[in-house]
Amino acid sequence: MTDFIKPIEKDLKKLELSIDKLIATRIDFIKKIVNYIIKSGGKRVRPILVMLCSKLCGYKGKKHIPFAAIVEFIHTATLLHDDVVDNAKTRRGSSTVNTVWGNEPSVLVGDFLYSRSFELMSYEGNQEILKTISQATTALSEGEILEIIKTADITTTEKDYFEIIGNKTAVLFSVACEIGAILGNVTNKERSALKNFGYKLGIAFQLRDDILDYTSYDELLGKHVGTDLKEGKVTLPLIYALKSAGEKEKLSTVKILKKHTVSQRDFERVRKLIEKYNGISYTSTATEKYLGSAKKELSRFPDSQYKDALLSLADYMLKREK
Amino acid sequence: MTDFIKPIEKDLKKLELSIDKLIATRIDFIKKIVNYIIKSGGKRVRPILVMLCSKLCGYKGKKHIPFAAIVEFIHTATLLHDDVVDNAKTRRGSSTVNTVWGNEPSVLVGDFLYSRSFELMSYEGNQEILKTISQATTALSEGEILEIIKTADITTTEKDYFEIIGNKTAVLFSVACEIGAILGNVTNKERSALKNFGYKLGIAFQLRDDILDYTSYDELLGKHVGTDLKEGKVTLPLIYALKSAGEKEKLSTVKILKKHTVSQRDFERVRKLIEKYNGISYTSTATEKYLGSAKKELSRFPDSQYKDALLSLADYMLKREK
Repeated sequence: MTDFIKPIEKDLKKLELSIDKLIATRIDFIKKIVNYIIKSGGKRVRPILVMLCSKLCGYKGKKHIPFAAIVEFIHTATLLHDDVVDNAKTRRGSSTVNTVWGNEPSVLVGDFLYSRSFELMSYEGNQEILKTISQATTALSEGEILEIIKTADITTTEKDYFEIIGNKTAVLFSVACEIGAILGNVTNKERSALKNFGYKLGIAFQLRDDILDYTSYDELLGKHVGTDLKEGKVTLPLIYALKSAGEKEKLSTVKILKKHTVSQRDFERVRKLIEKYNGISYTSTATEKYLGSAKKELSRFPDSQYKDALLSLADYMLKREK
Repeated sequence: MTDFIKPIEKDLKKLELSIDKLIATRIDFIKKIVNYIIKSGGKRVRPILVMLCSKLCGYKGKKHIPFAAIVEFIHTATLLHDDVVDNAKTRRGSSTVNTVWGNEPSVLVGDFLYSRSFELMSYEGNQEILKTISQATTALSEGEILEIIKTADITTTEKDYFEIIGNKTAVLFSVACEIGAILGNVTNKERSALKNFGYKLGIAFQLRDDILDYTSYDELLGKHVGTDLKEGKVTLPLIYALKSAGEKEKLSTVKILKKHTVSQRDFERVRKLIEKYNGISYTSTATEKYLGSAKKELSRFPDSQYKDALLSLADYMLKREK
């Protein structure tokens, strides 16, 4: 993923330094946990979007660095809380915070990161960005709640699914891009184009994630395959396959989704069902469609190295294996 | 507790109406959970402080209502997360959200309330209040983390204890009062006096809570007595008693603090230890000291029905049985 970070390589280094500064707390235990999760090989996709979009919009200042950090903090807070909600054991190939230190620090350090993010925003004093980010975090929690309501529910529709991933994933991608537009002080039409670009990119990112959960292996995804199935998450590959599935197939799928322990055999059964009814290829086509549509949003902007980088980031979304 | 709410009775009714409006979400499940916890007989102490302090500072507008609601939302979010962290079964005599619906909605609806609070603040556009509240929520999460670090640790000092309760409880009381000062646009000295008043009141509130946890019974506290002991929390009554306790007494206390299930006999043992070494009377004296000092902070303000109400609220802190 080096080609699209080239134009902002220096800023990304500054980001890592400022992450340490912005997280400052007198409590060593918080530092330890934040470092454990934030330095554990996250792809920094959201900060990259803040930076590339700021530059695309001609922003010459330095505020994109703290805002990129803030977006990453919020993302990290959601990971900490997700792992408690999903009772997850591993993330990015390492044990989750809740596995190592228990649920308590996962919940509370997540809260610390949320609060610190809003504290940092209050110092920055950009009302418009604050409004945009706080609306996004509200939507984010709504998306996560919708997802738990639909756990193990095979009547989950494509519409439900897109509402869930729109809120839980795409909205934060969208905001990351919008921050760039706000900092660059562009027209409403341009801001709206970047907002849509981010949203569609976020949808594609999640679709790819949900494909990889069925197709990739431990080494690549950094987690056991079939995590979604274990957690009872009904994602697009399965939703599509279930449309054509017979009653018997549906019943056995529900049983597996509701199980506390999903065996390798269970997983293979569902994976084969998805293969039989083309759930993966359908989801891949949807991913391509969203990415194509996302890229079109950028046509409003003149050619530049930043635009090229964003287009290449979009292509990466389709190909990424982790 | 009627005497100190009299001057703001109408505003408190408006608060209840605006809580419903401000929490608006299309997801019924969130409404259900927020209603369950926010309408479960909370004392609304923090909103009352926002209102009385605004009026004391001569504020004539309407913004104290949404800010009172925001402070209550933040408080409610911390309750939801606390119950997950403490694995609590009951609160205010009812089952906790995590007992009825599991940890997931407790964490996520807490996040929803945090985010919505910041979203509402972003609409209000008061930079100074935003800064003050976001610093407070950061301190709050730090306090909660300090508390879990010190779980079952009998070397916890009075200094540690006051740092914990200062952050986890007093800071939000302090901010509630400071909001009134900011809205009323008073001098820095007056703002600082109200900030200190709230902080000391909050300390006294928590001291009283920690006394009641050892002295009161089910019907009064709305929870089983000895909750702190069950959760391994080392509070002032115990810290003080342990100063005079012998090695054998210390050892048996540690054992009980580390137990997953604390029996009635265990509880009685610790309660008697606290009685023997005057832990309760020491904590009562500290409560009185903080309240006296809190009340002095108000001497800067001219007499009014609002000042009388705040003084009477301080007296209530000492006497309250739940």
